[in-house]
Amino acid sequence: GRERDLIFGTSYLNFSASYTDSSDDEVSPREKQQTNSKGSSNFCVKNIKQAEFGRREIEIAEQDMSALISLRKRAQGEKPLAGAKIVGCTHITAQTAVSGCLLGDPADSKGAPVLPGVAVFAWKGESEDDFWWCIDRCVNVDGWQANMILDDGGDLTHWVYKKYPSVFKKIRGIVEESVTGVHRLYQLSKAGKLCVPAMNVNDSVTKQKFDNLYCCRESILDGLKRTTDVMFGGKQVVVCGYGEVGKGCCAALKALGAIVYVTEIDPICALQACMDGFRVVKLSEVIRQVDVVITCTGNKNVVTREHLDRMKNSCIVCNMGHSNTEIDVTSLRMPELTWERVRSQVDHVIWPDGKRVVLLAEGRLLNLSCSTVPTFVLSITATTQALALIELYNAPEGRYKQDVYLLPKKMDEYVASLHLPSFDAHLTELTDDQAKYLGLNKNGPFKPNYYR
Amino acid sequence: GRERDLIFGTSYLNFSASYTDSSDDEVSPREKQQTNSKGSSNFCVKNIKQAEFGRREIEIAEQDMSALISLRKRAQGEKPLAGAKIVGCTHITAQTAVSGCLLGDPADSKGAPVLPGVAVFAWKGESEDDFWWCIDRCVNVDGWQANMILDDGGDLTHWVYKKYPSVFKKIRGIVEESVTGVHRLYQLSKAGKLCVPAMNVNDSVTKQKFDNLYCCRESILDGLKRTTDVMFGGKQVVVCGYGEVGKGCCAALKALGAIVYVTEIDPICALQACMDGFRVVKLSEVIRQVDVVITCTGNKNVVTREHLDRMKNSCIVCNMGHSNTEIDVTSLRMPELTWERVRSQVDHVIWPDGKRVVLLAEGRLLNLSCSTVPTFVLSITATTQALALIELYNAPEGRYKQDVYLLPKKMDEYVASLHLPSFDAHLTELTDDQAKYLGLNKNGPFKPNYYR
Amino acid sequence: GRERDLIFGTSYLNFSASYTDSSDDEVSPREKQQTNSKGSSNFCVKNIKQAEFGRREIEIAEQDMSALISLRKRAQGEKPLAGAKIVGCTHITAQTAVSGCLLGDPADSKGAPVLPGVAVFAWKGESEDDFWWCIDRCVNVDGWQANMILDDGGDLTHWVYKKYPSVFKKIRGIVEESVTGVHRLYQLSKAGKLCVPAMNVNDSVTKQKFDNLYCCRESILDGLKRTTDVMFGGKQVVVCGYGEVGKGCCAALKALGAIVYVTEIDPICALQACMDGFRVVKLSEVIRQVDVVITCTGNKNVVTREHLDRMKNSCIVCNMGHSNTEIDVTSLRMPELTWERVRSQVDHVIWPDGKRVVLLAEGRLLNLSCSTVPTFVLSITATTQALALIELYNAPEGRYKQDVYLLPKKMDEYVASLHLPSFDAHLTELTDDQAKYLGLNKNGPFKPNYYR
Amino acid sequence: GRERDLIFGTSYLNFSASYTDSSDDEVSPREKQQTNSKGSSNFCVKNIKQAEFGRREIEIAEQDMSALISLRKRAQGEKPLAGAKIVGCTHITAQTAVSGCLLGDPADSKGAPVLPGVAVFAWKGESEDDFWWCIDRCVNVDGWQANMILDDGGDLTHWVYKKYPSVFKKIRGIVEESVTGVHRLYQLSKAGKLCVPAMNVNDSVTKQKFDNLYCCRESILDGLKRTTDVMFGGKQVVVCGYGEVGKGCCAALKALGAIVYVTEIDPICALQACMDGFRVVKLSEVIRQVDVVITCTGNKNVVTREHLDRMKNSCIVCNMGHSNTEIDVTSLRMPELTWERVRSQVDHVIWPDGKRVVLLAEGRLLNLSCSTVPTFVLSITATTQALALIELYNAPEGRYKQDVYLLPKKMDEYVASLHLPSFDAHLTELTDDQAKYLGLNKNGPFKPNYYR
Repeated sequence: GRERDLIFGTSYLNFSASYTDSSDDEVSPREKQQTNSKGSSNFCVKNIKQAEFGRREIEIAEQDMSALISLRKRAQGEKPLAGAKIVGCTHITAQTAVSGCLLGDPADSKGAPVLPGVAVFAWKGESEDDFWWCIDRCVNVDGWQANMILDDGGDLTHWVYKKYPSVFKKIRGIVEESVTGVHRLYQLSKAGKLCVPAMNVNDSVTKQKFDNLYCCRESILDGLKRTTDVMFGGKQVVVCGYGEVGKGCCAALKALGAIVYVTEIDPICALQACMDGFRVVKLSEVIRQVDVVITCTGNKNVVTREHLDRMKNSCIVCNMGHSNTEIDVTSLRMPELTWERVRSQVDHVIWPDGKRVVLLAEGRLLNLSCSTVPTFVLSITATTQALALIELYNAPEGRYKQDVYLLPKKMDEYVASLHLPSFDAHLTELTDDQAKYLGLNKNGPFKPNYYR
Repeated sequence: GRERDLIFGTSYLNFSASYTDSSDDEVSPREKQQTNSKGSSNFCVKNIKQAEFGRREIEIAEQDMSALISLRKRAQGEKPLAGAKIVGCTHITAQTAVSGCLLGDPADSKGAPVLPGVAVFAWKGESEDDFWWCIDRCVNVDGWQANMILDDGGDLTHWVYKKYPSVFKKIRGIVEESVTGVHRLYQLSKAGKLCVPAMNVNDSVTKQKFDNLYCCRESILDGLKRTTDVMFGGKQVVVCGYGEVGKGCCAALKALGAIVYVTEIDPICALQACMDGFRVVKLSEVIRQVDVVITCTGNKNVVTREHLDRMKNSCIVCNMGHSNTEIDVTSLRMPELTWERVRSQVDHVIWPDGKRVVLLAEGRLLNLSCSTVPTFVLSITATTQALALIELYNAPEGRYKQDVYLLPKKMDEYVASLHLPSFDAHLTELTDDQAKYLGLNKNGPFKPNYYR
Repeated sequence: GRERDLIFGTSYLNFSASYTDSSDDEVSPREKQQTNSKGSSNFCVKNIKQAEFGRREIEIAEQDMSALISLRKRAQGEKPLAGAKIVGCTHITAQTAVSGCLLGDPADSKGAPVLPGVAVFAWKGESEDDFWWCIDRCVNVDGWQANMILDDGGDLTHWVYKKYPSVFKKIRGIVEESVTGVHRLYQLSKAGKLCVPAMNVNDSVTKQKFDNLYCCRESILDGLKRTTDVMFGGKQVVVCGYGEVGKGCCAALKALGAIVYVTEIDPICALQACMDGFRVVKLSEVIRQVDVVITCTGNKNVVTREHLDRMKNSCIVCNMGHSNTEIDVTSLRMPELTWERVRSQVDHVIWPDGKRVVLLAEGRLLNLSCSTVPTFVLSITATTQALALIELYNAPEGRYKQDVYLLPKKMDEYVASLHLPSFDAHLTELTDDQAKYLGLNKNGPFKPNYYR
Repeated sequence: GRERDLIFGTSYLNFSASYTDSSDDEVSPREKQQTNSKGSSNFCVKNIKQAEFGRREIEIAEQDMSALISLRKRAQGEKPLAGAKIVGCTHITAQTAVSGCLLGDPADSKGAPVLPGVAVFAWKGESEDDFWWCIDRCVNVDGWQANMILDDGGDLTHWVYKKYPSVFKKIRGIVEESVTGVHRLYQLSKAGKLCVPAMNVNDSVTKQKFDNLYCCRESILDGLKRTTDVMFGGKQVVVCGYGEVGKGCCAALKALGAIVYVTEIDPICALQACMDGFRVVKLSEVIRQVDVVITCTGNKNVVTREHLDRMKNSCIVCNMGHSNTEIDVTSLRMPELTWERVRSQVDHVIWPDGKRVVLLAEGRLLNLSCSTVPTFVLSITATTQALALIELYNAPEGRYKQDVYLLPKKMDEYVASLHLPSFDAHLTELTDDQAKYLGLNKNGPFKPNYYR
C-alpha cells in the first residue's frame, strides 16, 4: 500500500535526451516482465538494470536541491501528507526523483528501483499510445485510490475527469504546473465543471522567473553548444519573442558576444527590448543575414517556409518556446528537400541548390530535448508543488472552493527563502518601527500580489 | 480663459538642480511684479528674462520627445480635451513644458513666456510656504474653475479636497502619478470619501519600468559622477533594496566594473539578486569595506548612525529611493561632527578622528537633486498622463465610478507603441490565424493585466 | 608518394572526449590489420568503420571554417606547398581534418579513410608508448623524407632532432603552435643547436586572443555544464589567474550571474581584475565559501591539499590552465579519501566525514577533456599554421636564419581578414591622405609589432 | 630657490572645462599684477582669490590618490629628487596639483597659492600665444636652471631644444607622457639629435590601459550625459575605431543598452569587435540611422561633410580620439549652415531644411572638454611620471644612453602594486618552488616586456 503513496505517471515528451537514443528494433517495455530487487512488479521502465546509474544521478541531483532536502526533513517529522494518495504525471528525471522521495516515504525505499517508495510507469521513447497506457496504469490500481493530483500539462487530470469520474469527485486537490494545464483548468472552471480546488503553481513569481528567465538564460547556450558546438562570439541571432524566455535567451547570447535581434508583437515587450539594447525588427528584415533563429513565442508558424527558404547556408533554427509548432517543420517535409541526420537531435535540411539549414530537435523544445535543466530550477518547481499539495491537503474545509487559485504570495516567498541558504544569502529583517512605517508584517508578504 | 486651460503648479522639490543655486539675499518671486511679452501677469516665475534660455531647453527636449509630439499632432485635430480645465502640480522642467504645450493650445502660444498657453507658478528654491501659495494661486482663479486634476504626490488633490470641496465635487477625474499620491487616493477611497474617478498611472508597466529600472540605471551613474567624479571600476558598492530602482542601479554599476552587494528584506527579490550575480548581505556585514552606499528601499532609517560610524574614510552615501529618511541624516547633525560643503550637493561630514563621509544631496533623492532625468523617460510619463486625462475626460458616463483605476492595459501598450518609432523598432503583426490560435485581438491587449 | 604530403601524427592528450570512452579489454589499434577502401594500409586508427561518421563531422566543421576553405581554394591554384613533405603532430579532430585537406591534395582523396590524402596514426586512448610509436611511424617511412615540421608541443621536433638528425638537418622550416614547444625551440636556439628556421605561431595576436580569451570564454561554460549540469547564476567562483584564459573565464561566468573572485601574482593583471569588477583575494580567503574553483595559471600546485581540505561539500574543482599539475591531484590519491567516478570525466572525492569534492577530468585541462573547441577557433589556428608553412617553405634563401621568428604582423592581419567575411564584417579603407597622415601603408601592417 | 624645484608650465588645451567659461572682455592674466599670501609673484593664474576653492578640490582629489600619497611619504624620507630642478608642462587640475606637491617640498608650502612649492603659469582660456609665453616663463628664470623635463606633448621639450640649447644639453632626463611627444622624441633620436635620455611613459601597460580603456569607459558616458542628457538605452551608436579607447567606449555604451556599431581599418581589431558582439561596418552603411557618432581613431577626416549631410535630425557627433581633426569641422563652417550654441560645449549645426546635428566641443576631445577624468587614473599617470623622474635622476652614469626608453616592466608592476590597496586587493605570492618552476623572480617582473 504505502509504496503507492506517490505514483508518478509520465509524459511522451522526452525530457532527458542526453544519454542514448531508443533503437527501433527492441522490445517495448510494456511487453517485458519486470521485477525489482524487492520483488515488486508495480512499475514499468526501460531497463531496470540501470537502477544503479539512476541512483548515482539522483545523488548528484541532491547536491543542488538542498531546499527540497530541508523541506523533506521538516516533512518527515510533521508528515503533512500522511494519508495522501497522489497520482502524478510529469517528466521523469533524477530531479523529479528527489522530489518523489520527498513525497513518498524514504523509510520504505531500501532496495526499491529507481524511485523508492514510488511506482513509475515511464520510459524514454514512449509512443503516444504508451503514454496513455502509463497514465491509466497509474490511476487504475487495484485496492488503491488517488485523492490528490499532481499534473503537468493537464493530461492526467483530463483522463481522470473523463474515465474515472467517481475518482475525480473524491480528489481533494489538483496542483497544476504548466501553462496549458492551467488554461484547461480555467476553462473547466468557467464551464462550471471543476468540482475540485486546483492550485495554479505555474504563475508563482519564483517559478516563473526560474523556469523561464533564469533557466533559459543557461539552457539556450547549453542546448546550442551540445548540438552544434557553435561559437557564440560575433554570431548574428534573431530571437522571436521577448517575454521571460526571450529575455533569458537574449541576455545570455549578448553576454557571450552574439549580436541579437528581437521580434515582438507586444509594444511593451518591444520597448523593453529596445532599452535592453536589442534592435526590434520584423523577421523578414534580418532572415537573410542571421546565423541562428530562436523562437520563444508560444505562438505557431512564427518561422515559415518562406523564412526558411531565405535563410543562408548553415543557419541554425531552434525552438525555446512553448508549442512544437513555432517553426513550421511540416513545410520542410517536402520531396524537394533532403533531410540528413548528422547527430542526435540535429538534422541538416538540404535545399536543391545545396543550402543546408540546421534544424534542432525537429522543431521541438530545445531545452527539453538538447540541454539539461539545472537541478536548482527543478528544486524551485518541486518545492512549490510540494507546498501546494500540502496546502490543499491540509487546508480547513471551505478555505478553497471549487476554483483555480494562485499560490498565496506568502508561500511564494517561503519557497524563495528556502533557496537562499544555498547562496549563503542573508536576509535583512525589518525593525518594528520600519514594519509599521511600511504597513507590513515583519514576516511578509512584502509585495502586492501582482508584483513580478 | 483659454490660457488657463492648463495650469501647472509646482513642487518644493527642486527638480532640475543643474544650473545655478538660489542666492539667499534676493527678492522672493512672490514680491515681484511680473508681466510677460503678451501682457499677461497670470504667472509667477523666478526670472522671466530667462524665457529665451528656457525656450532653447524646450527645443532640445523636444528632440527626444517625439512620441509626445506625435500625440500632440493627433490631439490638435481631435481636440480631445476641448473644454477641459486642468489644474496640475508637478516638477517644472523643459520636459514638462513640452507636455504642457501638448495639453494647452499651441495656437495661442505665440509670444507667451516659458510655457505657452499655460499659467505657471513655480520657481527654484521655493519654501514650503511658497509651495502652498503657488498651489492655491493655481486653484483659486477668478472666473475659472478646474474640472480635471493632474497631480504628482497628492498635495494638490488634498488641497482642493480640503479647501475647495465644492470644486472637488465637480472634478471629472484625477490623474495621479506618484506612489504616495496613489496611496492617499486608495485611503480616501477606502474611507468612502473619494467622490471622483481617479486614474493610478503610477502602476502602469511602461511608466514603472522607465521611471524606475531604466531611468535609475542611467541616473545613478550620472548623479555620482557629477557630484564626486568617482571612478566606478573596482569600487565596492552596497545597494540597499533590489526592487526596480535597485535593479537599475546594480545593473549599471556592475556593468561599469563595480563590485556590488545587495541588502533585501523580501526573499523573492533577494533570490533574484543572487541569480543576477550579487551577494545578498546584511548591511553590517559589508559596511566597513564599501566605497559607496546607495539606498533604494522606500523604507526609513535603512542607514543608521551606527552604520555611518563604521564606514571607512571617503565612503560616499546617497539615496536613490523614495523617502528622504532612508539615510538617518538627523543623526549626523550632532555637535561632534563637522559638516563641510565641498561642492553644490556634496557635504563632507567629518568625524573627530578626521574620517570623512561624503553625503550627497543631504540624503534627499540623488536622481532628483544631482542628475537629470532623460527626456525620453519624461516623455513616457507625460504621454501616459495625457492619455489618462483624455480617457477620464471623454469616458461615457458611468464607465468610471468613484474609485481608483489602473490604466487599461491597452492604453499602456499604446504609450509604448508611440515610443517605438524613435528606436526605429518594427512591431510584428499577428496573422488572423495566429491571433485565433492565441485567443488574442490583433490590436492587443497582448498580456494579462498582472503582467509586468 | 602523394598521399603522404601531409602526415599528421597524434598526441596522447584526448582532444575530443565527447563521444565514447575506451574500454580496457579491446585489442590495441596497433595490433589490428587495417586497410582503407582504397587498399592503403599506411595509417592506424581505432575504427575505420567510423569513416562515414567522421566524414559527416568534417562536413559540419567545414561550415564554420570558411576562412580555411577560401585559403584552400587559393592554394589549389597556386599550390604553394608543392613538393612540401610535411610531418605533423597535433590533436586529431574533424577540424584538423579540414586543415589536413587544405594541405594535402583533395583530388587524391576519393575513398581515402578519415583524412583523405593524409596518413594518420592516432586513436583515442593512446598510451604514452603508443604516442611515441605513432610519431615514429610518421617520420620513419620507406622512400619518403619530411622537409617541413608542423608541431604542437615540441615532441615531434624533439624526436626528429634526437633520432633522425640527418632528416632534421634537411628540414626547411618548423612551425610550432604551443607555449611549451616554443619554449623548447628558444632553448635550442640559445644553445646554438637550432639549425632550422622556426616560426612561433603561438604568439600571434589572433591565435592568442582566440585560443585563450575568446575560446575559454565559451568553453568554461560548456565544460562545466556538460560534466555537472551546474547552474551558474549566483554561484561563487574563484578563478586563479587573470591572464587571457582567466579573463575569458571570468567574463563568461560573470555574464551568466556568477559571483567571481580572482587570485593573481602579477599586480598589473590584478589591477585589471579590479577594474573589470572582480575582487582580488588570496585563495585561502574564499576557499571555504566558493562553489567552484578554476585554475588558469600555468603554475603548479596552485590548489593544494590544504585548500581541498577546506572546501565545502559539493565544491567543483577544475583546471583551464596549461599544465596538468595546477591542482595537486596527487595529494588526493590517499587512502583516507574515496574516489567515486560518477560520470565520464567526473569524480567525487569523498572525505571521511562524507564531504564530496567534485573533481573534473582528474585535474587535466577541462577545455580539452570536457568541452569542444569552437570550429572557428581552430580555423584561426589552422590558417595561421598554413600561412606559416607557406611562408617558410617559399621564403627566398636567407630571409629566415636558424632562429625562432614571430609571425610577421602583416600575416597576422591577413589571418584576421580571412575570417571577417564569416561575420559579414566590412573593413574601412584608408584614403591616400589618411595613410600619409598616419604614416601607414594602406594595406597594413596597421600596428606596431608589440600591439596586443 | 626651493620654491622652484618644480615649475609646472601649462597647456593651451583646457583640461578641466567643468566650472566656468572665460568671458571675452576681461583683462588677461598676463596683464595683472599678482602676489600670493606669501608675497611671491612667481606665478600667473587667473584668479588667486579662488585659491581656497582650489585647495578644497585638491583635498577631494587626495582621497582617491592614495598611491601617490604613499609614494610621497616614502619620497619625503629618501628625498630621491633632492637637487632636481624640474620644468614641466601639463594640464593643470586638482590632481596634477597633488602630483606637484609630491615632487615639490610640502614643508615650503604654507601660504603658497594653488600649488604649494611650485610655480605655476597657467589659466583657463589661454591663447596659443599665452601658452608659449607661459612655457618661456617656466624655463627662463633668473638664477635657476632646470635639469629635468616633465613633458606632455613635446612642446616644452621642443622649446628648450630650440631656444635654450645650452640648457637642453645639461638636462639629465626627459619624461614624456603623450603619443605625440613620444613620436617627436623618436624622430629626434633617429636624427641623432637627442642628447638626453628620455623615458617613454606613454607606452607603459598600466598607463595605457587606464588612460585609454578604463578611463574612456567612464568618460564617454559622463561626457555625453553632461552635455546632452541623452538616454543611452536603445540608442544606435557608431564608434569609429576599436583600439583601447574605442573598446572602452563600446563596452560602456553596450552595457547601458545602446546598440553599437564599429568601424575599423585593422582586421585584427575588427575581428575583436566581432567577437565582442559589435557589427563591423563602413560608416556610410549606418550613418543615416545612428543617433550618436563617436570617433576614436587618431586619424583625420574620419567623419566627413558627406557623412554629416546624411545624418538624421538630432544626431550627436563627438570625438574621443587623439587629434582635433577626426571630425571635419571645417567643412561645417559654411554659410549655408547655421550654428547655434545651445549650451556650453554644445552647438546645434542647422541645415537649410531644419535638420540639426548636435556637435560637442566643436569636435575637440570630449573627455578633455566635457567630462572629468577620474582622479584614480591621474594617480596612475602621476605615479608613473614620478617614478620615471626618480629612475632617470638616480640612475648610475651610463645606464641610460641618449635614447628613448620604455619604462622597465618592473616599475610598471610597481605602479600597479601601489594602487592595489585602494581596492583592498590581495596579491598572491609565489612559493620558492613555484617561482623555480616558472623561472621567475618572486618579486617580478612577471611577464615579458611585450605583454599587454
